[in-house]
Amino acid sequence: MSYVHEMLETHPRLSPVDVEALADCIKACYDCVQSCTACADACLGESDVHGLIRCIRLHLDCADICQATGQMLSRRTEAEWGLLQKQLEVCLLACRVCGAECEKHAPHHEHCQVCAQACHRCEATCHELLGEPVL
Amino acid sequence: MSYVHEMLETHPRLSPVDVEALADCIKACYDCVQSCTACADACLGESDVHGLIRCIRLHLDCADICQATGQMLSRRTEAEWGLLQKQLEVCLLACRVCGAECEKHAPHHEHCQVCAQACHRCEATCHELLGEPVL
Amino acid sequence: MSYVHEMLETHPRLSPVDVEALADCIKACYDCVQSCTACADACLGESDVHGLIRCIRLHLDCADICQATGQMLSRRTEAEWGLLQKQLEVCLLACRVCGAECEKHAPHHEHCQVCAQACHRCEATCHELLGEPVL
Amino acid sequence: MSYVHEMLETHPRLSPVDVEALADCIKACYDCVQSCTACADACLGESDVHGLIRCIRLHLDCADICQATGQMLSRRTEAEWGLLQKQLEVCLLACRVCGAECEKHAPHHEHCQVCAQACHRCEATCHELLGEPVL
Repeated sequence: MSYVHEMLETHPRLSPVDVEALADCIKACYDCVQSCTACADACLGESDVHGLIRCIRLHLDCADICQATGQMLSRRTEAEWGLLQKQLEVCLLACRVCGAECEKHAPHHEHCQVCAQACHRCEATCHELLGEPVL
Repeated sequence: MSYVHEMLETHPRLSPVDVEALADCIKACYDCVQSCTACADACLGESDVHGLIRCIRLHLDCADICQATGQMLSRRTEAEWGLLQKQLEVCLLACRVCGAECEKHAPHHEHCQVCAQACHRCEATCHELLGEPVL
Repeated sequence: MSYVHEMLETHPRLSPVDVEALADCIKACYDCVQSCTACADACLGESDVHGLIRCIRLHLDCADICQATGQMLSRRTEAEWGLLQKQLEVCLLACRVCGAECEKHAPHHEHCQVCAQACHRCEATCHELLGEPVL
Repeated sequence: MSYVHEMLETHPRLSPVDVEALADCIKACYDCVQSCTACADACLGESDVHGLIRCIRLHLDCADICQATGQMLSRRTEAEWGLLQKQLEVCLLACRVCGAECEKHAPHHEHCQVCAQACHRCEATCHELLGEPVL
C-alpha cells in the first residue's frame, strides 16, 4: 500500500468519498507535477528548443496547478467541496491543454510522449473525482 | 517602480493587456500567499486553536491557489487565455471563501483582520483582470 | 517503470549520475511532500490538536523544502552541483527533525507513524545521493 | 505598513527577532520568486534563447528555494532555528549563483538586469538575518 493510501486511511476525520479514486487522483497530480517539471527541463536541453517554447510554458503552468490540486486533495479536514470542484476543473483543463501540446512533440521527443501520458492520466482521475457525489 | 512592473515592462513579448491591472493582480496574489501562510501559522499559535481549524485549512488552500495564480500571471510567453481565466476564477473563489472565514475571527484576532484584507484585495484584482478583453 | 524513471532515461542530456539513486530520491521527496501535507491536516483534525502544534509546523516546513528538492532534482539541464548539494543537506535535516517529531506522536496517531516512515525514507535517499561523486 | 509587517506584529507568539530585518527578508524572498519566474519566462521568449538555457534553469531553482524560504520565515510558531539557518544559507547561495548568471546577460536583456537586483537584494537580506542571535 502506498503512503497516499495509508495517509488517507489513518485520517481522524473519515469522509464518504471513494478512497480509491481520491488516492489515484492525488498520486496522478504529483506524478504530473514531476513529469511536467522534468519535461520542461528536457525540452530546455534539446537542440530544437525554439520549437518547444509553448510546450515549456504550458508544462510550468500545469505543474503549478497540479501541485495546488495535489496539496488540496491531500487535506481532508473541513473540506470545501465547491472550491475543490473548481480546482479539479482547472486542473483537468491544464492537463488536457498541456497533454495535447506534448502529443505534438511526442514523435520527436520521447520525454514528451511520457509526459503526455502523465497529463492524460491526471486529467482522467480529475474527471472521475468530479463525478463523486461528495468529495 | 516595483520589480513586478519592471519585469512586465522589460519582457520581450509585449501584450495588449493593461499592465497596471496585471501588476496589481500579481502583487495581490503573492501578498495573499504570504498573508495566508502567516495567518494559518498565527491561528496555530492561538490558545483557541480549536475554533480556528476551518480557518487554518482554508488559508493553506488559498495560499496554494494564489501561488499558482501569481506564477502563471508572471509568465507572458505563449499565454493560454482560457486556462488563465479558469485559474483566475478559482483564485477569486478561494479568496472569497477564505476572506469570509477570516472576517468571522477578525473581532478576536487582528491577524485575521489583516489577512481578510489581503484576501479581499486579491479577489478584487482577479475580478478586474477577468474583465480584460485579452489577458 | 515509473514516470520518474522514464523521464530520467529520455532526457536529452545524460549525466554520469546513478539514475536509480536519483529516481529514488525524487520519488521520496514528492512522497514526503504528500505525507507531510496530509499529516499536518490529519493532526489539525485531531481532538488533541494542542499537543500537535510543533508537529504541524514542522510538517509544513518539511513539505516546502522537499517540494523544492524534488523540483530541483527533476531538472537535469545545466545542473549546479554545489547548490543541489546544499539543498540535499537542508532537505535531509528537515526530514530528520520532522521525522523525529512524528515518532513522538506515532504511538497515539497512526498517520504520524506513516509520515515518519516517509520522512526517514526521504532522509536516507538524500543521504545516499550526497555520496554520489557528481549529481 | 505592508501586510508582511502587519502579520508579524499581530502574531500571538512574539519573538525576540528584529521584526524589520525579518519583514525585509520575507518580502525580498517573494519578490525574488516573482522576478525569477518572470525572468525565466522572459528569457524563454527571447530570440537568443539558446544562450540563456543556464539562466532559465537557475531561475527556476532559485524561485523554488526562495518560495520555501518565504513560507518558512512567514511562520513564527514553534520555529526551529537550526533548520531556518540552513534554509537561509541555501537561499543565499541560490540568489548569489542566479544573480551572477543574470548579470552576464544584463547588458543585452533589461529583465536580467532587474532580476539580478532582486537576487542581490534577497541574498543581502538572508545574510543580515543569519547574523541575528535568534531568528
